[in-house]
Amino acid sequence: MRISIIGLGLIGASLARAWARRGRGLVQGYDVSEESRKFVQEQGWAHVHDDLPGAVSDAELVVLATPVPAYPAIIRVIAPCLPAGAVVTDVGSMKVAAVAAVGNSLPEQNPFVPAHPIAGLERHGPQNSRAELFDGHWCVLTPLSDVGCDVATQFWEGIGMKMARLTPKVHDEVLGFTSHLPHLLSFGMAGAAALLEDEEGQPLMRFSAGSFRDFTRIARSDPALWADILLANAQNLKMAYELLRKQVEPVLDALTEGDRETARNLLTEQNAAFIERLAADK
Amino acid sequence: MRISIIGLGLIGASLARAWARRGRGLVQGYDVSEESRKFVQEQGWAHVHDDLPGAVSDAELVVLATPVPAYPAIIRVIAPCLPAGAVVTDVGSMKVAAVAAVGNSLPEQNPFVPAHPIAGLERHGPQNSRAELFDGHWCVLTPLSDVGCDVATQFWEGIGMKMARLTPKVHDEVLGFTSHLPHLLSFGMAGAAALLEDEEGQPLMRFSAGSFRDFTRIARSDPALWADILLANAQNLKMAYELLRKQVEPVLDALTEGDRETARNLLTEQNAAFIERLAADK
Repeated sequence: MRISIIGLGLIGASLARAWARRGRGLVQGYDVSEESRKFVQEQGWAHVHDDLPGAVSDAELVVLATPVPAYPAIIRVIAPCLPAGAVVTDVGSMKVAAVAAVGNSLPEQNPFVPAHPIAGLERHGPQNSRAELFDGHWCVLTPLSDVGCDVATQFWEGIGMKMARLTPKVHDEVLGFTSHLPHLLSFGMAGAAALLEDEEGQPLMRFSAGSFRDFTRIARSDPALWADILLANAQNLKMAYELLRKQVEPVLDALTEGDRETARNLLTEQNAAFIERLAADK
Repeated sequence: MRISIIGLGLIGASLARAWARRGRGLVQGYDVSEESRKFVQEQGWAHVHDDLPGAVSDAELVVLATPVPAYPAIIRVIAPCLPAGAVVTDVGSMKVAAVAAVGNSLPEQNPFVPAHPIAGLERHGPQNSRAELFDGHWCVLTPLSDVGCDVATQFWEGIGMKMARLTPKVHDEVLGFTSHLPHLLSFGMAGAAALLEDEEGQPLMRFSAGSFRDFTRIARSDPALWADILLANAQNLKMAYELLRKQVEPVLDALTEGDRETARNLLTEQNAAFIERLAADK
């Protein structure tokens, strides 16, 4: 299968490497940044083109691996050059927004199969890419019809992913909770820790076990990129935050009132419900 | 140095193994649970006694490795049997409460050196202990005087820890933020995720990258143990939660209002402040 990857950042470059690693040959690639193009070309991870039309001219599958807000401009350029029947998929982590960004701007013969490969890192850029980034992770398709899904699935399974389907709406609700809320909290935690250090006048973050490190790992993520992701899913993020508060605040109230039994019962319920659901999904 | 460890759970058994691993010989040990006593004895990790007085009878250093609420009852039993000059230290993660729990109940010749070895796991029991649990982590002493600190320090450094000193009050404020708040949030996140799965009628937690897993790892911790820890530090935990809300909610407000610039600026500040402080502590 002839693949073109638009956007050679952490995700795009990892896709190219994942595909090549499995002996499927090099993908065609393009990135708006000359530096990234040069880097990926030098590493031998893709046939890199200096223009968008050249990168897609013989593609059977085009993967949009840029931020979602860039989709319309890219599609305006590539739509006239796409081979008949070429399928377009993407990696955007907000599917309602991704579907809206593509809209009706692709030729009818070029179906769009929205996808979200759920894998990532707190680092960015092709320098940090990894061929094994997607191994064993879930890729969620949120297609409006079945057209093109077989081609897209062949690619995503081909780089080692497990497939699932959700509607764009449910996808965004779920990811608002499992990914976007942790990012919002992690940035907040990081900012609060910095303030606390300034108040106390000494390095305090060192006095933490794994929990604080776990909570702040993703606070190293690119804030501009995440501002756009969170913005596109702000309503679901707000719902997720309120859902969390409804769990946390009764516990906190019980604790501050010295009500040991209630606090213990609530924490025990949260812990048990979680472990049960995880076991059921094995 | 002759060491006695009271409490052979995850921490106590790990301490015994860490000490033995460095060629310092076996510690004396005691646990209220017959099962834990038997297990640790069979593994050969300590000389296990069936009674508290026997376990401390020739100690130079006694380590309390039980939950803090158990300290008074233990001290009532061991106080009359402690060798002259034996030092008592502990592992409690709330130092104001630990200091209060010991109070004046030890003989004057037996100094108490409150300690918090900041290392842990979401599992519990001696079955999950690890000899290398403390390697390279910080141990915070919160002593009221210098008496006994040299002996305690010899032990903690002897199992591979880096030493620091804080007042009990500052220790509890810091840990309220770096450890207790993540635990409160993690249990809440776990409970909320279970609710969300029930609402949607399908397993959704699988659709998460590392961030959700990072945030819920410690939701597997023992809820009864953590209820007591959080209870003992409820006021600082509440302050930590409010500190977090003050960072998170302006971002969330900007996002829901579609104010991209403000959201981006706030996230960028949080990210930059955090990375700066971490770099400064290298």
